[in-house]
Amino acid sequence: MKNTLLTTCLLVLMWACDSVDTANETKNRPSEVPYAIAIHGGAGTILKANMTAEMEAAYTQILDSVLTTGEKMLEADADAVQVVIEVIKIMENSPLFNAGKGAVFNTKGENELDASIMIGETQEAGAIGGVRNIKNPIEGAYAVMTKSEHVLLTGKGAEQFAVEVGVDTIDPSYFYTQRRYESLQRAKAEESGTSMYINPDYKYGTVGCVVLDQSGNLAAGTSTGGMTNKKYNRIGDSPIIGAGTYADNNTVAISCTGHGEYFIRYAVAHDIAARMEYGNASLKEACSDLVNGKLVEKGGSGGLIAVDKDGNIEMPFNTEGMYRASSNGVNRFIGIYGNKDAE
Amino acid sequence: MKNTLLTTCLLVLMWACDSVDTANETKNRPSEVPYAIAIHGGAGTILKANMTAEMEAAYTQILDSVLTTGEKMLEADADAVQVVIEVIKIMENSPLFNAGKGAVFNTKGENELDASIMIGETQEAGAIGGVRNIKNPIEGAYAVMTKSEHVLLTGKGAEQFAVEVGVDTIDPSYFYTQRRYESLQRAKAEESGTSMYINPDYKYGTVGCVVLDQSGNLAAGTSTGGMTNKKYNRIGDSPIIGAGTYADNNTVAISCTGHGEYFIRYAVAHDIAARMEYGNASLKEACSDLVNGKLVEKGGSGGLIAVDKDGNIEMPFNTEGMYRASSNGVNRFIGIYGNKDAE
Repeated sequence: MKNTLLTTCLLVLMWACDSVDTANETKNRPSEVPYAIAIHGGAGTILKANMTAEMEAAYTQILDSVLTTGEKMLEADADAVQVVIEVIKIMENSPLFNAGKGAVFNTKGENELDASIMIGETQEAGAIGGVRNIKNPIEGAYAVMTKSEHVLLTGKGAEQFAVEVGVDTIDPSYFYTQRRYESLQRAKAEESGTSMYINPDYKYGTVGCVVLDQSGNLAAGTSTGGMTNKKYNRIGDSPIIGAGTYADNNTVAISCTGHGEYFIRYAVAHDIAARMEYGNASLKEACSDLVNGKLVEKGGSGGLIAVDKDGNIEMPFNTEGMYRASSNGVNRFIGIYGNKDAE
Repeated sequence: MKNTLLTTCLLVLMWACDSVDTANETKNRPSEVPYAIAIHGGAGTILKANMTAEMEAAYTQILDSVLTTGEKMLEADADAVQVVIEVIKIMENSPLFNAGKGAVFNTKGENELDASIMIGETQEAGAIGGVRNIKNPIEGAYAVMTKSEHVLLTGKGAEQFAVEVGVDTIDPSYFYTQRRYESLQRAKAEESGTSMYINPDYKYGTVGCVVLDQSGNLAAGTSTGGMTNKKYNRIGDSPIIGAGTYADNNTVAISCTGHGEYFIRYAVAHDIAARMEYGNASLKEACSDLVNGKLVEKGGSGGLIAVDKDGNIEMPFNTEGMYRASSNGVNRFIGIYGNKDAE
C-alpha cells in the first residue's frame, strides 16, 4: 500500500516539478544572449571617499576598454579561452591592477606572479606560481595547459619552462612601479614585532575574466601579484584550480579575488560549481550563499565573477568594492563600489 | 487542484522518505564505532605478480604497525590531527613509501617534498610544496597551519619558514635511497625525445591518513615526494587543499593518491565532500561515482581514503592496487592489491 501510494505521488510530483522547472528556467535565463563576459580587477577596501576623480576615471576607462575588447572578440565568434587570455593580458599590462606590470612587491622587494586558466569543455587547466620573469603570467599558465602534461609549475622551474616553450619573458625590473614600491615601504613600516601581521589592505588585488562564447564554451582565468610584503614564497588562491579559478561547461566559469587563504580552505571556485551541479542551486543562489553567507560567517573577505552555461552573470563581493564589468551583448555594466556607496 | 494534490503528495513523500532514510542510515552506519582511521601508501600498478614475498611482507608489516599506532592513540582519546601527524611521520620515516625518507628523485637528482594537512572542525589547513630540507614534511604543513596566517608556502621560502619556527630540518642527502636513485636512472633512460613523456609508473606514490576521533573531529593529511624525474618545480595535488586533501566535520576527511593533475582539475577531495553535502550522496556513492566513475571516464588514475563524520570508511581506487589499511576499533583491514588480484 505504502509503495503504491509512494509511486503515484512520485509521478505526480515529477509532473508538478517539471512545470515548476520550466517556469524557473524561463524566469532565470536571460533572453537568448549571444555570449557573456565578466571581468574583475580585485576586491577590497575600495571606497568612493578614498578615490580621486582622476583615479575613478582611470579605472572606469580601462574597465570599459577591456570589456569592449572582449565584446568585439566574442561578437566575431572568438573562443572563450582566447578572450580570457586577451582581456587578462590588457589588465596585466596596466599598472592600475595588482597583476603583471602593476604587481605588488614581496618582502624582498621582488615581484612574484601567479596565474591560472581553465577551459570548461575539457576541464584542462594550467597555472604558474611565484614567477618573476614572465611578462604576461596568464600566457605562462596557458602554456602549462597546452604544452605540458602538468597543471601547476612554480618558481625557477616554471620560469625555465616558459623560456623553453617560447613564452615572452622579460627582465624582472619591468615590474617596478613607484606606487607599489611605496606600498611596500608603508607595509614594512607598519609591520609589528611578529612577522605574521598582515594589514588587510595589502591582502587583495587580482585580475580575472570569465567567458561564455557563442559556441557555448566556458573559460576562466585569474592573474595576480599576490600580497604586498609577502613572505616565504606564499602562494594564494589565484594559481589554485578549484580555489581561485574553475570552469566546467556543465555549470559555470569562476574567477575569485580576496583573502586567498580562505578561498583555498573553502575551495570557493569549485564550491560554486558543486552547489549548482549537486544542489541544483541557481548561479545567483550559489554565489549569494557562499560569498555573502558562508565566507562572511567564516571571515573570508573578497568576491568573485561568474558566468554560467546559460549566460547568467553574477559578480558578488563582501568587501567595500570590487573593480568589475560585464556584458552579455545586450546589457553591459561597469562598477567599482558596493551597494553602501553610490556608484 | 494541482497545488492541493502536490501538497498532499509532498507530505506523503516526506513520511515515506523519512522511513527510507532511517532504514538506510541504520544499514549504512556502522554500529556505534568509537573512532575510524584509514591510511594509504600510494596507488598504482601494484600487482601481486610483480611483488616478492619479502616486499609484500614488509609492506603488510609496516601498514599493520602504522595502523596499530593510530588505533592505540585513538583508544587513548588522541585528537584526530595528532593521529594524522604521527601516522604520516612513521610512513615518511620509512624508505618503503614515496614520502619523506623514501621520496623519489626529480630530474636534477634532488628530492622535492610536498605535504598538506586540514582539520575538519575549523577547516584550518596548511601545506608546503617543493621543500628539500624538512625531515617530516607533514610537520612543515602543520606549522604553516598553526604558526602562520597562510595555507601554502613553497620552495626556499617554506624552508626558511620551517627553520624560523623550529620545524626539524635536515641535510637533503638524508633523502637519498639507492632504490629511488635507480628509478631515476631508469626514468631518464626511458625518456623520449620530448621532455614531456611520463612513464605511468613514475606518476604515483603518496602517503596519507584520515581520522575521525572519539570527539567527532575529522582530520586529513597527505605527504609525497612527487613524480620520479619531475621537472620545472611541478606541484601535484598532495599540497593542494581541495584536490589532494580535505576535511570538514560536516561531511568527510579525504586524502588522495594518483595522477595529481587530474585530482587538481576535478578538485577530487572537495568534490567528495560536495557530493555528500549538496547531493546527499552517501560516502560510498560519492566515492564510487567519482573514483570509479568520473575519474575512470576522464583518464585520471588513482585512489583515495575517506572517513566520514559517522565513522564510515571507504578506500576506492581505479588502479591495480593501493597500499591501504583501516580500522574503526571493531573491524580492521590491511590490503595491497585490487579485486582482480588475490589479497
